Amino acid sequence: MAIPSIAAVRKALIAPPGKAFELSGRDTTGREILEDKAEAETSLKKDAAVINELKDMLYAEGRRSLLVILQGMDTAGKSGTIKSVFSETTPLGMEVKAFKAPSSEELARDYLWRVHNAVPRRGNVGIFDRSHYEDVLVVRVRGFAPIEEVEKRYDQINAFEKHLSENGTTVLKFMLNVGYEEQGIRLKERLEEVHKLWKFNPVDLEDRSRWSEFMQAYELAIRRCSTRHAPWYIIPSDSLTRRSALIARIVRGALEDMDLKWKDPGFAPGSFDFG
Amino acid sequence: MAIPSIAAVRKALIAPPGKAFELSGRDTTGREILEDKAEAETSLKKDAAVINELKDMLYAEGRRSLLVILQGMDTAGKSGTIKSVFSETTPLGMEVKAFKAPSSEELARDYLWRVHNAVPRRGNVGIFDRSHYEDVLVVRVRGFAPIEEVEKRYDQINAFEKHLSENGTTVLKFMLNVGYEEQGIRLKERLEEVHKLWKFNPVDLEDRSRWSEFMQAYELAIRRCSTRHAPWYIIPSDSLTRRSALIARIVRGALEDMDLKWKDPGFAPGSFDFG
Repeated sequence: MAIPSIAAVRKALIAPPGKAFELSGRDTTGREILEDKAEAETSLKKDAAVINELKDMLYAEGRRSLLVILQGMDTAGKSGTIKSVFSETTPLGMEVKAFKAPSSEELARDYLWRVHNAVPRRGNVGIFDRSHYEDVLVVRVRGFAPIEEVEKRYDQINAFEKHLSENGTTVLKFMLNVGYEEQGIRLKERLEEVHKLWKFNPVDLEDRSRWSEFMQAYELAIRRCSTRHAPWYIIPSDSLTRRSALIARIVRGALEDMDLKWKDPGFAPGSFDFG
Repeated sequence: MAIPSIAAVRKALIAPPGKAFELSGRDTTGREILEDKAEAETSLKKDAAVINELKDMLYAEGRRSLLVILQGMDTAGKSGTIKSVFSETTPLGMEVKAFKAPSSEELARDYLWRVHNAVPRRGNVGIFDRSHYEDVLVVRVRGFAPIEEVEKRYDQINAFEKHLSENGTTVLKFMLNVGYEEQGIRLKERLEEVHKLWKFNPVDLEDRSRWSEFMQAYELAIRRCSTRHAPWYIIPSDSLTRRSALIARIVRGALEDMDLKWKDPGFAPGSFDFG
């Protein structure tokens, strides 16, 4: 087997805009598209290096930005994705925003206020660890807002993401699709390893007990909000390496599509005196 | 020769709080403290790995933060420092803020407003690429504010940094000390290499033409604002490798001094059901 092309990865993992979408039955292993783990590692390493180069060009250009949105159940690997896909990049020009339960200042505004405030500046790559999708996921499942309000949000989110896209931000959305069994294994690991223990929160188990409700909320969000300007990709996430390798392929593809060039400075070299 | 200890690097490079300080005559090569370049590379690599570990513990703890302030003339290596000292770290939990000319919104408030707004959240490492020191450097040299205003700022800055320090933020300040000749070489390089050209700004030459005024402004800022709670370190920066290796020693030292531990989660493992 060979490393699948960026086009092949996109095609296999996208939730096609405007089409029917079902989450159940989607592969969570990643083996269907990237069987060989050694190849996945090679691919990830190569893509991380290219992403680093292209990110520097994006920064130098300073006109556009890339926003990577990561969503997934606890332990799905949001932090690990950031660490591995961007392992080669300098933190300069990267903006990682982890969205937590909203503060009272944030609750005093509409739910997109804090999100808009956190979009990456031109030239930068922004990563959202969780995002405004929580406002149609956990908020829906736990009833934190009236269902009529939640129902309005899908269109609002599409309008917001279209606005970002039309103003120079490429938006990529990844649903890290981890299996129920695999999550159980990872939660147990968090209790057993001292450097993972801090991540464990007994509240996570309450979300786990509502697994199928969460999956339904994800399915709905993805179906309604996978658009041409901001597509959803469903990433098989039972294997850390395959997960990161697949995301790296798509991130690289998005940066390549920007057709970045080293900027013409607008003056002639050789006309300066360096004393 | 051996890699100098963290204590030795600190002692050699600190501007001792409350004591006389002169910038002129300070070594810009780094050879006096770290002669062997291969050793500098080894030291940098090791320290970057340790910084990565400690940064993860800081993030897990979520109670304190580290703020690294980088100042220096153009080409002194602020971006390069970020890239190399934090080459091993994930962007999660890192906040890099590059301060540019203030916007009209920023100018409508006091000069520390935008700075306070950008301090790292608890658990994070913040890096300032330029900082509020511009308000006593370029602002002083170019007369962007009345001299009486500028004169008040040193005490204001000390009070602000003391406040941060008392509220859980370790503050480290690095002056990247590059020689006049070396800057000339680097500016020329920016014109000759396509991937550096975007960094070149003809305005940089105006700052270069006021080199000695800038050095005086730096000397004054360092003399007045090197404090026990927020010391200034003068980093010889003619060599990229030595510069980064020396900064990495001090950053590592600051993280080690925090005495970070993996947090006790406050509940007994084994009492959970993963269904």
